[in-house]
Amino acid sequence: MKKLLTLATAALMAGSAFSQQALWGGTPLVSPQINPDNTVTFRCKAPKAKTVKITGDFLPENEIDIPNYGKYALPGTAELTEGKDGVWEFTTPAPLTSEYYCYNLIIDGQRTIDPANVYINRDVATITNCFIISNEKGDKGDLYRVNDVPHGTVRHMWYNSPSLGMQRRLTVYTPAGYETSGKKYPVFYLLHGSGGDEEAWYVQGRISQILDNLIATGKAQPMIVVMTNGNAYEQAAPGQSPEGFKQPQMVMGGVKEGMKEAAFELSFPDVRKFVEKNFRTINDKKHRAIAGLSMGSFHSEQISKYYAGEYGYVGLFSGAGVGDGRKGDGSSSQSPVYKDFDKQMANLFSPKNRPELYYIAIGKTDFIKKGSDEMRAYMDEHKYPYVYRETEGGHIWRNWRIYFTEFAQKIFK
Amino acid sequence: MKKLLTLATAALMAGSAFSQQALWGGTPLVSPQINPDNTVTFRCKAPKAKTVKITGDFLPENEIDIPNYGKYALPGTAELTEGKDGVWEFTTPAPLTSEYYCYNLIIDGQRTIDPANVYINRDVATITNCFIISNEKGDKGDLYRVNDVPHGTVRHMWYNSPSLGMQRRLTVYTPAGYETSGKKYPVFYLLHGSGGDEEAWYVQGRISQILDNLIATGKAQPMIVVMTNGNAYEQAAPGQSPEGFKQPQMVMGGVKEGMKEAAFELSFPDVRKFVEKNFRTINDKKHRAIAGLSMGSFHSEQISKYYAGEYGYVGLFSGAGVGDGRKGDGSSSQSPVYKDFDKQMANLFSPKNRPELYYIAIGKTDFIKKGSDEMRAYMDEHKYPYVYRETEGGHIWRNWRIYFTEFAQKIFK
Repeated sequence: MKKLLTLATAALMAGSAFSQQALWGGTPLVSPQINPDNTVTFRCKAPKAKTVKITGDFLPENEIDIPNYGKYALPGTAELTEGKDGVWEFTTPAPLTSEYYCYNLIIDGQRTIDPANVYINRDVATITNCFIISNEKGDKGDLYRVNDVPHGTVRHMWYNSPSLGMQRRLTVYTPAGYETSGKKYPVFYLLHGSGGDEEAWYVQGRISQILDNLIATGKAQPMIVVMTNGNAYEQAAPGQSPEGFKQPQMVMGGVKEGMKEAAFELSFPDVRKFVEKNFRTINDKKHRAIAGLSMGSFHSEQISKYYAGEYGYVGLFSGAGVGDGRKGDGSSSQSPVYKDFDKQMANLFSPKNRPELYYIAIGKTDFIKKGSDEMRAYMDEHKYPYVYRETEGGHIWRNWRIYFTEFAQKIFK
Repeated sequence: MKKLLTLATAALMAGSAFSQQALWGGTPLVSPQINPDNTVTFRCKAPKAKTVKITGDFLPENEIDIPNYGKYALPGTAELTEGKDGVWEFTTPAPLTSEYYCYNLIIDGQRTIDPANVYINRDVATITNCFIISNEKGDKGDLYRVNDVPHGTVRHMWYNSPSLGMQRRLTVYTPAGYETSGKKYPVFYLLHGSGGDEEAWYVQGRISQILDNLIATGKAQPMIVVMTNGNAYEQAAPGQSPEGFKQPQMVMGGVKEGMKEAAFELSFPDVRKFVEKNFRTINDKKHRAIAGLSMGSFHSEQISKYYAGEYGYVGLFSGAGVGDGRKGDGSSSQSPVYKDFDKQMANLFSPKNRPELYYIAIGKTDFIKKGSDEMRAYMDEHKYPYVYRETEGGHIWRNWRIYFTEFAQKIFK
């Protein structure tokens, strides 16, 4: 009889002192509990609390008024009811549809995470819990979850940007088999919104799950997806740069006061150069796509026309605008990227440079839908071809996952 | 005057509805606030709360008694004091030393994250906030932070394990320049503890930051680090596998009831085969290391002796045990991996197979220190060479980062 048993048992306690505490002293509460009919029950033990609420993207939205922008929909809230032993509970009144959902609890006015749910994500400066409803019918939840299909690789890596004078972090998805196939692949540059970073599409966008699933079923071509950081003033996502653990900020257009206008767009060739040197890429227009959400849509619009003829597929998700750029003080931008909109668009849609696909998508209640409508009117007026997709809802990740899923199936074919 | 200004301003609102809410309605509270003398102030606005406490690994530990194991140190707690406007505050009584720290708040008995701190990590089933104290003197905090040095790449990828009959996820660090150098590199297999997974060393262990910093200063050789999932019953970290978003569990030795004993150890050749096929590796004993913490230490001990002569550097962090393996019911294990301890150890330390380094490390108050001491006595008795490192504290990440840092500087030289 030797000591290995002791060691093996002791191994149970590994992890950290924190994990011990959670596992030993933890409550057996299950939250969220996905019921057989796809209603969902949330529970929270808070015997001293006066109110416990939940806010999530599965609850009816609340509209607020934003100065100069009109109504804007925020996730709704619902109240949990206190039962015995101080356990509060809320069950959605109706089954939830197949989707990836996010929520927070609000205990006595304090917004926080659900202590019983270890699944979280960060969106800009907000930590939320998440869960997936799958209906096994191939709908969104099934597409956003990990299935038993070949999986691609996701890399966190760094490139050098001489234009911005810094090393910068990016996220790269390569399809299953990339490492050993010896093949070359098309490249999709995928840009985040304001306040986001190079992790946003990977975390909130579920793009590695979506692509694994689409490629496995032959619905999308195997492709490399490059997710840059569109905030020209920073090297990397919060906590991942030498700046350390500072509170994330949203900065106008991803460019800070005093920086060169269109700094991100003008630095974009640094990204391409790195990618084409470090990955096996097919380097022509028909094998290069660019798309983004909100600020990333703005960036995609600018980059696709300023570097006309480089990107064969352009996706503007929840953001598209007509006209020359303006600076924060209302004066005209002098950046060549933002000037001569008409001329640049005419060049982009010239026979030589014309994209295979110019995709504009927006939600019906998006607060910037007017800008998108104007862009379409402009496109119609100039007879520039595009595909338009309108969805329910507003400026939300649920829509961006839909647009990504559709766009990814239309490119490189 | 066109609409681009509107779009650019609207881009400010991008992210998601959740992010808007946090940034618009958010409190300007700063927490944690690292003061000039490296004391740290924590703040929490909770006007309705009766008590707000903090628990963290920088507070004096509390000892608890674990049946059959004796005293075990848990992170201490401290009380925040309510000031005006319902803002609670606590400042550490003394400056904190250079380190990566984790903590939680406890509001009215409910353990939760600090709503003002977006930096979190998951350790098994616990979400904690984190921050770093750097003193700019090259101590631990400086080593654990991101500095302006060349950065390696971290990959989340999948390998096929015929032995376990599943695809499995792993994390791989490659040093800066790997992609384009054309060189071959040594490989360090780094294993997590019970309940952990392939993300543990990357997140809590800060190994990509540590290696970037050590390699940049010439203190460690450029190397590939492979972080597998040591729980033989699962494909991937919670939320990253087809099992979806289930509550993480700790399972005895990483093997579930009914599974083959030593399932993980016996499947380890699948990992090596994948790595040596997919990366440019130097395939000999002098360029192959294995180490792990707690359960991962147990795995490293077994793998290094069962596959004697394959691993030139062996690191047992907070876990080492003497003797033949026992099953959960106390009977002898029949697995060839756990049998014939004396014979296997003699074979491992034969002139042909002898590791360049056999490193045993443990904290003075670790609850499994006795097993480690017995292992050393056994090594001494048999005149097997090893390096021993003893630190303050117990079975905690702070120590595992120290051991990793030291071990990484001793290998492949």
